[in-house]
Amino acid sequence: MKIHLVNPNTTASMTATAIAAARSVAHANTEIIGSQPDYGPESIEGYYDEVFAIPGLLGNIVAHNDCDGHVIACFDDTGLDAARCVANGPVVGLCEAACMMASMVANRFSIVTTLSRSVPALEKLAQHYGMSDRCASIRASDVPVLDLENGDADNAIAAEIEQAINIDSAEAIVLGCAGMADFAAELSQQFGVPVIDGVSAAVKMVEGLVSMNLTSSRANGYAKPRPKTYHGSFSSYAPAGE
Amino acid sequence: MKIHLVNPNTTASMTATAIAAARSVAHANTEIIGSQPDYGPESIEGYYDEVFAIPGLLGNIVAHNDCDGHVIACFDDTGLDAARCVANGPVVGLCEAACMMASMVANRFSIVTTLSRSVPALEKLAQHYGMSDRCASIRASDVPVLDLENGDADNAIAAEIEQAINIDSAEAIVLGCAGMADFAAELSQQFGVPVIDGVSAAVKMVEGLVSMNLTSSRANGYAKPRPKTYHGSFSSYAPAGE
Amino acid sequence: MKIHLVNPNTTASMTATAIAAARSVAHANTEIIGSQPDYGPESIEGYYDEVFAIPGLLGNIVAHNDCDGHVIACFDDTGLDAARCVANGPVVGLCEAACMMASMVANRFSIVTTLSRSVPALEKLAQHYGMSDRCASIRASDVPVLDLENGDADNAIAAEIEQAINIDSAEAIVLGCAGMADFAAELSQQFGVPVIDGVSAAVKMVEGLVSMNLTSSRANGYAKPRPKTYHGSFSSYAPAGE
Amino acid sequence: MKIHLVNPNTTASMTATAIAAARSVAHANTEIIGSQPDYGPESIEGYYDEVFAIPGLLGNIVAHNDCDGHVIACFDDTGLDAARCVANGPVVGLCEAACMMASMVANRFSIVTTLSRSVPALEKLAQHYGMSDRCASIRASDVPVLDLENGDADNAIAAEIEQAINIDSAEAIVLGCAGMADFAAELSQQFGVPVIDGVSAAVKMVEGLVSMNLTSSRANGYAKPRPKTYHGSFSSYAPAGE
Amino acid sequence: MKIHLVNPNTTASMTATAIAAARSVAHANTEIIGSQPDYGPESIEGYYDEVFAIPGLLGNIVAHNDCDGHVIACFDDTGLDAARCVANGPVVGLCEAACMMASMVANRFSIVTTLSRSVPALEKLAQHYGMSDRCASIRASDVPVLDLENGDADNAIAAEIEQAINIDSAEAIVLGCAGMADFAAELSQQFGVPVIDGVSAAVKMVEGLVSMNLTSSRANGYAKPRPKTYHGSFSSYAPAGE
Amino acid sequence: MKIHLVNPNTTASMTATAIAAARSVAHANTEIIGSQPDYGPESIEGYYDEVFAIPGLLGNIVAHNDCDGHVIACFDDTGLDAARCVANGPVVGLCEAACMMASMVANRFSIVTTLSRSVPALEKLAQHYGMSDRCASIRASDVPVLDLENGDADNAIAAEIEQAINIDSAEAIVLGCAGMADFAAELSQQFGVPVIDGVSAAVKMVEGLVSMNLTSSRANGYAKPRPKTYHGSFSSYAPAGE
Repeated sequence: MKIHLVNPNTTASMTATAIAAARSVAHANTEIIGSQPDYGPESIEGYYDEVFAIPGLLGNIVAHNDCDGHVIACFDDTGLDAARCVANGPVVGLCEAACMMASMVANRFSIVTTLSRSVPALEKLAQHYGMSDRCASIRASDVPVLDLENGDADNAIAAEIEQAINIDSAEAIVLGCAGMADFAAELSQQFGVPVIDGVSAAVKMVEGLVSMNLTSSRANGYAKPRPKTYHGSFSSYAPAGE
Repeated sequence: MKIHLVNPNTTASMTATAIAAARSVAHANTEIIGSQPDYGPESIEGYYDEVFAIPGLLGNIVAHNDCDGHVIACFDDTGLDAARCVANGPVVGLCEAACMMASMVANRFSIVTTLSRSVPALEKLAQHYGMSDRCASIRASDVPVLDLENGDADNAIAAEIEQAINIDSAEAIVLGCAGMADFAAELSQQFGVPVIDGVSAAVKMVEGLVSMNLTSSRANGYAKPRPKTYHGSFSSYAPAGE
Repeated sequence: MKIHLVNPNTTASMTATAIAAARSVAHANTEIIGSQPDYGPESIEGYYDEVFAIPGLLGNIVAHNDCDGHVIACFDDTGLDAARCVANGPVVGLCEAACMMASMVANRFSIVTTLSRSVPALEKLAQHYGMSDRCASIRASDVPVLDLENGDADNAIAAEIEQAINIDSAEAIVLGCAGMADFAAELSQQFGVPVIDGVSAAVKMVEGLVSMNLTSSRANGYAKPRPKTYHGSFSSYAPAGE
Repeated sequence: MKIHLVNPNTTASMTATAIAAARSVAHANTEIIGSQPDYGPESIEGYYDEVFAIPGLLGNIVAHNDCDGHVIACFDDTGLDAARCVANGPVVGLCEAACMMASMVANRFSIVTTLSRSVPALEKLAQHYGMSDRCASIRASDVPVLDLENGDADNAIAAEIEQAINIDSAEAIVLGCAGMADFAAELSQQFGVPVIDGVSAAVKMVEGLVSMNLTSSRANGYAKPRPKTYHGSFSSYAPAGE
Repeated sequence: MKIHLVNPNTTASMTATAIAAARSVAHANTEIIGSQPDYGPESIEGYYDEVFAIPGLLGNIVAHNDCDGHVIACFDDTGLDAARCVANGPVVGLCEAACMMASMVANRFSIVTTLSRSVPALEKLAQHYGMSDRCASIRASDVPVLDLENGDADNAIAAEIEQAINIDSAEAIVLGCAGMADFAAELSQQFGVPVIDGVSAAVKMVEGLVSMNLTSSRANGYAKPRPKTYHGSFSSYAPAGE
Repeated sequence: MKIHLVNPNTTASMTATAIAAARSVAHANTEIIGSQPDYGPESIEGYYDEVFAIPGLLGNIVAHNDCDGHVIACFDDTGLDAARCVANGPVVGLCEAACMMASMVANRFSIVTTLSRSVPALEKLAQHYGMSDRCASIRASDVPVLDLENGDADNAIAAEIEQAINIDSAEAIVLGCAGMADFAAELSQQFGVPVIDGVSAAVKMVEGLVSMNLTSSRANGYAKPRPKTYHGSFSSYAPAGE
């Protein structure tokens, strides 16, 4: 089985982290093919960055449509619905996969993410996935995505996990950023509860869907796009903030 | 007051229809400035088309940031959250505005849209806006967006409205596509219930927010984007379906 | 356009405050006509006072049925559904209008009201308007309605706003009493987030509905009352607590 | 034990029907004291009529505050929250009591009421009582309240019950009007499922609360009304529709 | 009327406590017949213990099918749905009865139970009964069931009640364990809000249902079990943890 | 990896069907070990049968606690919470796994099960898993579990699938009984939408959880059972219906 893991931001070290996490849980005969767009934001923090990540992400998905399935390696589940419309195989996001895995080992779980600006988008996802009641809290560690590799990051994350367990009665923790994949094992050890990395969760979900010969339904919402004219090109547009 | 109405697709006749609807309800001293992206899909039907409409839409919003507020003239509320992060003034979508207006004149309302592929995206919006209980049904007329100008379109729409009233107990109807703006008055006459055009609703909402000196909060979710590097350019990417 | 603003309590100074707030946001050619019942409670604090305010309120609405629309200037949205049954034009309440405006500039907002006895009624309204998920908290300042004009009132309100922002992650604040209209601008300045006055919000909503030729649907719930016999008169009944 | 049953409309024959239903299920040593206001509407059909029924209803409750508890004998649970603020003993409404009883003998139930104009008010109640998921449907028989005594009424009701069972998978039926109390036994016999009369349900609930020494909490929402000035009198106001 | 109260655990003193609570609120002519299984756990604390309590509990219910109704005297509502399938008369659980009673005397209530391991099961029940919005919190006192008779138990419970009232804005308290029945009156006195014992609540509910000739619907979910072969016997199975 | 699949009923041919389905999707190096209790019902249809299946099921789980994880091969997710308390590895139910898989390939899905008596239990599960909004309908084919091997069974199931797609707008189908595992591929072919077998879904979920080193949290709800005395034995109790 070949699974395409696309990191929607352009930071190569984050792609590498995600690929490593993916390979550590994938089956021996699952090949993980990583990619990242050539253009777009270096990290995705909130609603705006997502927009400029998705066109490239979809390009990568179409370019890897020979793969059996796809993981979108960003906890915002960036472009997930659109990707399902063009991918031949199943497509899974980190947030949905991790929340579902969490709900099978815990009655209530908390998500610990990076910046508070990302929290509303995750609340929206949790609601859409039916996880609002199971999700005890979504906490921000106030560590920006690209600072996750610094030594202090896991202290800040650990502090939020402690509060999630003690105050919010979380029975498990979901790490709310692809860049946190490295921390899961150690934090689980430290706190004695399941700590779930979204990359790993999504890889196992795609493996499962592919094994079952399941892919996105073509009835209604995920129907293949209708053929139509796309005017102009993207060349003259830089992100609005530049 | 200057309101920027951006039609996120590239079809000029739809922009014109939306501008006309906007001007028909705007205050005498509200100036409506219409725009549409130079590139992107000619119509938006489902999750995929949205992706390629939003970068241009955001560009237009930034280019019109001297306006007092913005209407995104597409019933999918395409790019709404991202637009709020970069717009100086308030930004309102058609679906949210129309559902809210409907909920103030009716206990339950139905949305009548174009294609069934668009229904799941609208269900998601209705849920996010807290309108799931008030929305009696979302019905597809099976008229593609660009066929709305044909003579038969309003028959198909009328047939769904009739069922929404008689079967789903809808007390009002929301027209689920910017291209249906022309039909509201006549259909309201025909069925004797409020029929709500999203463009008109959104214009009045923006006028209201501007009069109240309200714009998107910068706390958390709609904070201005963090400065960061955007790699590459959009030039080499055509939509994946091309 | 003529809008009738009815303060359902009998305190003239509150009517004056509401009229001033209304005029400050209304369009130049919108005439605001204020009124208050001749009888009923001097303020509305909880479920009981509402009852004795509504008959007079409805009388005032019928007496002003030549107006294009009506605002019920009480944050409990007192008598709103009944008013829609007899008013020719649209009728809007403060709570619904303010919550909707808040939801277009913030992912989550908090309501700060007067007494804790009023909180359950507001929770019920928030639920009915589909705003339970968007409303981060409803906080009581413990300032009685008629004490709002005292110097200390805004300190107590400010203290709750601070907690709503810091603890409840509110991105915007809704002022939960018509008598707080004066405070909105200053508090917004102080806290750097949108602070929304319900009177202003409701006026803009009515203006919007009137511009769109929308009024309450006569299908089902807001049908005009069936003609029937009303026995006796109200003359011999004082409020039960007297 | 003395229970005060107040019919909020002024039609004596409906009071008699309710008293009979109450007595048929009350304990031997429970005394049922019936009352109805001297003024107000002859029947309650929708949001508007309620308003003019409640002041008299509250007067009757205060006048019978020596009773151990109160039943508000109208399926709209007219004035229930306000009544709890002034009654010494517990107060129960028909809709809440009947839905709760139904949820203990059935996984899903349907409500069959009189006119479609009453349905939205009942949906609101069902939502507030947490019964939205358990309530399979609310169906209108299109029999006005005062026509319930006619021979054809139960045919129309039976037709809706049949559909509720066969189409909506209702396992039990709640009769959505105090005037239907007489029909419960026969309809239950006819359809082989529990058919629940609200008057009976509410009487048993009040008996239960009184036996447990429970009455409305004075913390927050049902606190006794604050003493305040009520201006004017009700004498000069007839219902607005007159 | 004869009501069978079955304590699903095997601790005789808890049965006695429950019977005493039941008799203190039952009508003079209601006979309370207590029972407990001969085998099963000595207390029920969480999901696992329930399993081994239910077969014996159902045996007791069938053995007492000459009674008019049944109370399952455990706050987990252990085996409630299955009991309804085989009992001739109505069956009521403590959690559902107490939450419903609480919702008729309070806008919001809190449940105070024994161990934190029991909380998720109670959250599930509250959700199923539609009480999630009305239930302000579920708090664990960390007193094991069998220690409830110790002197310190009510201090621990009182501490949680205090927080429920002050922090969670609970207007009433539900005692979340049959073994707490003795404490209700004193705690209500101490805190000045309604404190509700589930045994009492359930007894009054069953009395009510029996008076109304209501029992579990045989349509769909509570249909009598289909006749089928049950292989083997339970003799060789001790609880898995032994 | 060794996965224990326990069929909670005593019908060997159903165990064989489930094992075959499990092996068809399991990884080459996953060993599937099937089991079924020696006693209990020959099939599980509704709330009652579950009770007598769970003690044996838990015995089997404890007996196979050397396995890496467990699948409970019944669509009612019989005994799932209790099993999590005693199993060393993760435990997954068919309903939860299948609904989650469905929600990753479809916006809305329907469940097609056996008898209408089972529908309320499945509605309860769907609610608990947060899938109420995503689940378009739960339809009963009226084929008893043990008749699933008859030739006509799939016609009845196909008829319900057709209605789910055409009337309820389901984009995918979940087969609501372990005994339907054989039909998935053919029905998917016939209707052109994903048709999901719960056994396969659960196996892939357990494989995923085991690969991620995740098992049930011991915080709160799934804590290991407290040591306590279990009185008596199960020997003298036959199911109550015998």
